[in-house]
Amino acid sequence: MFGYMGKILRIDLATGNISEEFPDEDTLKAFLGGAGIATKYLIDETKPGIDPLGPENKLIIMTGPLTGTTSPSTGRYSVVAKSPLTGFWGQANSAGFWGRNLKRSGFDGVIFENISPKPVYLVTNNGKAELRDASHIWGKNTSDATKIIKDELGDKFNVACIGPGGENLVRYAAVMNDCDRPYWGRAAGRCGMGAVMGSKKVKALASWGDMKIDVAKPDEYKEEAKQRYDWVNQSLLKMTLEVYGTAAMVDLVNVKGGLPTKNWQTGVFPAVDNINGTAINDTILVDRKPCFACPIACGRLAEIKEGKYKSKGEGPEYESIGALGTMCGVDDLEAITYAHFICNELGLDTISAGNTIGFAMECFEKGVLTKEDTGGVEFKFGDADLVIDLCNKIAAREGIGDLLAEGTKRMSEKLGKGSEHYAMHVKGLELPAYDSRAAKITGLAYATANRGGDHITGYIEGPAFLAMPFMIVEEADIGDPLQEIPETTKIVKEMEDAFGVFDAIGGCKFMGMVLTKQDWASLIEKLMGYPYSAEDFARTGERIYNLARVYSIREGCSRANDTLPPRLLKDPLPEGPGAGQVVNLDPLLDAYYGYRGWDKATGKPTQEKLKELGLDWAIDLIY
Amino acid sequence: MFGYMGKILRIDLATGNISEEFPDEDTLKAFLGGAGIATKYLIDETKPGIDPLGPENKLIIMTGPLTGTTSPSTGRYSVVAKSPLTGFWGQANSAGFWGRNLKRSGFDGVIFENISPKPVYLVTNNGKAELRDASHIWGKNTSDATKIIKDELGDKFNVACIGPGGENLVRYAAVMNDCDRPYWGRAAGRCGMGAVMGSKKVKALASWGDMKIDVAKPDEYKEEAKQRYDWVNQSLLKMTLEVYGTAAMVDLVNVKGGLPTKNWQTGVFPAVDNINGTAINDTILVDRKPCFACPIACGRLAEIKEGKYKSKGEGPEYESIGALGTMCGVDDLEAITYAHFICNELGLDTISAGNTIGFAMECFEKGVLTKEDTGGVEFKFGDADLVIDLCNKIAAREGIGDLLAEGTKRMSEKLGKGSEHYAMHVKGLELPAYDSRAAKITGLAYATANRGGDHITGYIEGPAFLAMPFMIVEEADIGDPLQEIPETTKIVKEMEDAFGVFDAIGGCKFMGMVLTKQDWASLIEKLMGYPYSAEDFARTGERIYNLARVYSIREGCSRANDTLPPRLLKDPLPEGPGAGQVVNLDPLLDAYYGYRGWDKATGKPTQEKLKELGLDWAIDLIY
Repeated sequence: MFGYMGKILRIDLATGNISEEFPDEDTLKAFLGGAGIATKYLIDETKPGIDPLGPENKLIIMTGPLTGTTSPSTGRYSVVAKSPLTGFWGQANSAGFWGRNLKRSGFDGVIFENISPKPVYLVTNNGKAELRDASHIWGKNTSDATKIIKDELGDKFNVACIGPGGENLVRYAAVMNDCDRPYWGRAAGRCGMGAVMGSKKVKALASWGDMKIDVAKPDEYKEEAKQRYDWVNQSLLKMTLEVYGTAAMVDLVNVKGGLPTKNWQTGVFPAVDNINGTAINDTILVDRKPCFACPIACGRLAEIKEGKYKSKGEGPEYESIGALGTMCGVDDLEAITYAHFICNELGLDTISAGNTIGFAMECFEKGVLTKEDTGGVEFKFGDADLVIDLCNKIAAREGIGDLLAEGTKRMSEKLGKGSEHYAMHVKGLELPAYDSRAAKITGLAYATANRGGDHITGYIEGPAFLAMPFMIVEEADIGDPLQEIPETTKIVKEMEDAFGVFDAIGGCKFMGMVLTKQDWASLIEKLMGYPYSAEDFARTGERIYNLARVYSIREGCSRANDTLPPRLLKDPLPEGPGAGQVVNLDPLLDAYYGYRGWDKATGKPTQEKLKELGLDWAIDLIY
Repeated sequence: MFGYMGKILRIDLATGNISEEFPDEDTLKAFLGGAGIATKYLIDETKPGIDPLGPENKLIIMTGPLTGTTSPSTGRYSVVAKSPLTGFWGQANSAGFWGRNLKRSGFDGVIFENISPKPVYLVTNNGKAELRDASHIWGKNTSDATKIIKDELGDKFNVACIGPGGENLVRYAAVMNDCDRPYWGRAAGRCGMGAVMGSKKVKALASWGDMKIDVAKPDEYKEEAKQRYDWVNQSLLKMTLEVYGTAAMVDLVNVKGGLPTKNWQTGVFPAVDNINGTAINDTILVDRKPCFACPIACGRLAEIKEGKYKSKGEGPEYESIGALGTMCGVDDLEAITYAHFICNELGLDTISAGNTIGFAMECFEKGVLTKEDTGGVEFKFGDADLVIDLCNKIAAREGIGDLLAEGTKRMSEKLGKGSEHYAMHVKGLELPAYDSRAAKITGLAYATANRGGDHITGYIEGPAFLAMPFMIVEEADIGDPLQEIPETTKIVKEMEDAFGVFDAIGGCKFMGMVLTKQDWASLIEKLMGYPYSAEDFARTGERIYNLARVYSIREGCSRANDTLPPRLLKDPLPEGPGAGQVVNLDPLLDAYYGYRGWDKATGKPTQEKLKELGLDWAIDLIY
């Protein structure tokens, strides 16, 4: 079929056997690719109740049909497995250049099965695939591992890999890619996909290729892709994101009183001017860098020229500033940037790492953790060097780091003493840096996101916090963020569905701010060569969304899991525009289930809904 | 009443008599101030059919209740008179600092009547007002006039004035303010208010004061205004406008194929990279400057360091780049910037000036104007020096400049030979730089705007071209800009109403992108001390809008005037995303009249609508 290389690698790590296969046309049409197809594989091929870090879990890495083509910002790949953090459906994705090269090396994706007896890395290169010994790079940081592999294979290869965090099964370890010195590096960060990769003893995937992606209507596709690229290139989105990076959000969220501070004790961070996009521009910024086929360049290249944080690397994303900065009470931009470098080198998800450290700080403040637990160290909000030290200890599972490597959910379950109240996760996944008490609808999106407490499943903080339009969903206007209007949950549902398609085709969700469903459907149609409408786009997203839900339901997920940390439900924000507010979740959840066609008691997709989506075969899995 | 100084100056220029007066509370509540109150005066005090440049016209300059207070971007004043360009309701407004100083000098506004026997300027200063002889500054450019007056009165005074354009009754002469050397200067540009001022022999108004504006709930107002200021200060709007200025629009409009090029022959300008916001930043930008109480600083200070355009002044606004640049086929940023300086110095509206010059170029191209008319000069698109030369000749009414000083409508009526087809005005007011064929709904907004072909009456190009949200109107989403959806005309109506209130209170319309009606209503309530809701806000805007319409209807305006230049209705765009498109206006107009409660045959507000708005007294004026 057009848009695909037509080969997926299946690698039995226990035997080293490599085979090739490809889904049938109906399956591809139903789930497109990326996280869509990967979820289909996961649900088909794994049994319920397996250990996410055991041999029965599968690590499925998949590009989408648009990955590597000329449409704007289509360089992404997805990683899908059962999550060691949530125990439910796990997914992470990333751009950069590696995904493009995996695909053009001749393979749409890779399914890793079982566990390798020794560390290995996979090489794909113009139709060929081989496993190589990785014993000499096991234990290396991501940029070191990348350099060693490129020295071995040639500089044209791109590398995706794990760091010590993944090797040591930190439950929120990331899969990193394009960690080329001195500056670059991108993360498929969430849900602990790096730990799954580590559990299988896969250190890296190295890919290069110049094989052609067949396009059904090449001239039309090229022309339309160019025009859409131009639209994005000349958009307000680009003007803001290129200048400030995602750190543009710092001011915008703080002014609405929703920038989580000191483990979410408040939503107003006093020293915001030290850590915002302007501060980055004025101090550490060296250059801006785009991912494959992207006109925007939201990536920051940063350098700290002197002092104890002297380093070169990625400038911090908004989420890293929130997690490693404001959540930990740290207002030193150089320290935050350095902690962000360290997490990239160690292969840790910055959101989960920072949240977990902030949680530990509050546990210490409240006497739930003591100096006996911490090896004599005082854990205090604002201690930037402690944050950096803990990142290192987490990746190594050294001392208290071993506890923190489990994430806030398991930590709070182990520590007890009421700490569950302020363990800021949903389903085990630590929350991103938007306090839902200052924009209520984001609380629903955290509660319902398939991969746990996540912000880009539905991206509703865009309209909610920033009043940004999202062209991908018509009239995505949620009005006053402090109101709780059940009807606006329909927008959450529509955005979850639409953005699910991005993870299936290999697209960047920022593009959903500029281009419409119709724009994307038309590109898909011209690429793949069969009729594809905006309705098909929305319906495909809904199908994929429900399939991931079926997976999690099969693993025991129910309405009871679609909830928020007690702090967001019960403790009013103490100050700022959201002062006095908590999230009143149930009415929103009821309305959302209604729009979803899910049973309000159990949270299961109804049999009718599954039939409507062509998922009849999945009914038996959960009924 | 709170929010006002309580005094309006009435100046009989024929006698030099100065008196003070103030509207009653009901009138103020109904029309608030600024252009609202000024329109009430105009309709009450002038007869139908008067000569706009004769003694019977009145020049009414008015601040609003928020002008000079701490709410964000509230430094504006409005100028209202019968327009010498349209013959209907004329209005222009501007920010900078002069409006704030007029008000704090003790006066909410000034009504000029009759004609002075000799040039004069008005001085207002902490409750005192006097007319002074201006013979020595008559004929001076705006920055020279400003400097002479400040030398006479002291540097703390701010000045609003006209240049040679207004003195010579160029029908699109501007009232300029804050033309302080070397860089600054703001324009109340549209509808020829500078010509009305010139006809009355008023050269300038110079104001300074530190009198207090009484606020009903000072602490609450201060706190709320501060918070709203912070919101704007930390918004996407600021991030874009501060970095690029209004020139941010150049790329955004061009990519949609709506940047009027060579007198609107196409909407795609090839050399857009030479003249966009990035080009300004990279070449001529010296600094950015905000108006009074504004957190944004969209104003550009520019310098051309050498060559024939060597100069210092305002960097060009988007509209100036469009009118003096793309419409004339000029892609030389230094030349455009210099032409923009010249227009500011001469006191010409850049939109009308550039449009008129572009029109003359096409007339020459088509043989409607010949070398006999132009004094032997060839008029060719792209000739930057010709644009500059013509600006000078227009202001002096020298040679062919005398014809161009009449504007496109009168020129085309005089020249005939089919030139009316491409005379790009509505009701005589030249169009701003958004081609409605590439975003249809903007065509309706041009056709219906009370002051003629105008973009900021309804600001619909924001949602239409830029997919920008406007918080001031809920769900301001017009969808595909190439579709013509009658229901979206309701948004135009709502935006016209809401933005009418900005002109009444003294606010900047950019604030409508960040703050809601509720936000503004709450500020008004705390300032003025009586209950004021979001519904009151919308209703006040609708009342003011209908009153201005009544004025124009009384002057002979009807549905026949609510139309577009034939080029937009009949000539398809030749290229770009809007290729093949024209505006099909009538269905939009029908729907709009429906939402407005206006008679579809005549375009008159119905008697019911006028009663509903408390304008019963106006029924007799048009029925």
